[in-house]
Amino acid sequence: MFWEIAQIEVKAGEEAAFEAAVAKAVPLFKSARGCEGMRLHRSVEHPSRYRLVVDWDTVEDHTVHFRGSENFQEWRRLVGAHFAGPPVVEHTHRVVDGF
Amino acid sequence: MFWEIAQIEVKAGEEAAFEAAVAKAVPLFKSARGCEGMRLHRSVEHPSRYRLVVDWDTVEDHTVHFRGSENFQEWRRLVGAHFAGPPVVEHTHRVVDGF
Repeated sequence: MFWEIAQIEVKAGEEAAFEAAVAKAVPLFKSARGCEGMRLHRSVEHPSRYRLVVDWDTVEDHTVHFRGSENFQEWRRLVGAHFAGPPVVEHTHRVVDGF
Repeated sequence: MFWEIAQIEVKAGEEAAFEAAVAKAVPLFKSARGCEGMRLHRSVEHPSRYRLVVDWDTVEDHTVHFRGSENFQEWRRLVGAHFAGPPVVEHTHRVVDGF
């Protein structure tokens, strides 16, 4: 299981619209191959900064299959206009499962 | 519930020792006031880069109570020598709970 961590800066004043768009986009992830979960976090220190964290079975489920899918086009159509810049995306895997 | 997301760059070659030290430090978080969980993730794209993600009831449970505690001193004693630089720490809260 991998995490996609996408750091997304949102245009000032569009935070509520962005959050609503992400909530609307949940089914796009739910129906994606290898997608096991997702949630959106908002920064306390930088309130226009978000972290979208998505659970994928493999990195390629995100980078190849999701990005090449209609769902991705729809995702970007829903949320892309609120981005202040391109998201910064990284993948991670859990190495210590504390508690 | 808040996440502390700490981005930690580890000295090249010390990744395994760092991971072992974090595993050893789990009880320090488990016994901390307001700490509800923790896990360590390693970057796929930058394998010396980690994300420590800790669940806190409040931001102050981390920034005031934990950082002012003996447990924090012990945490830094266990892992600090492996840091390639100061961790970059941010707090977030969940705004969309997808699935």
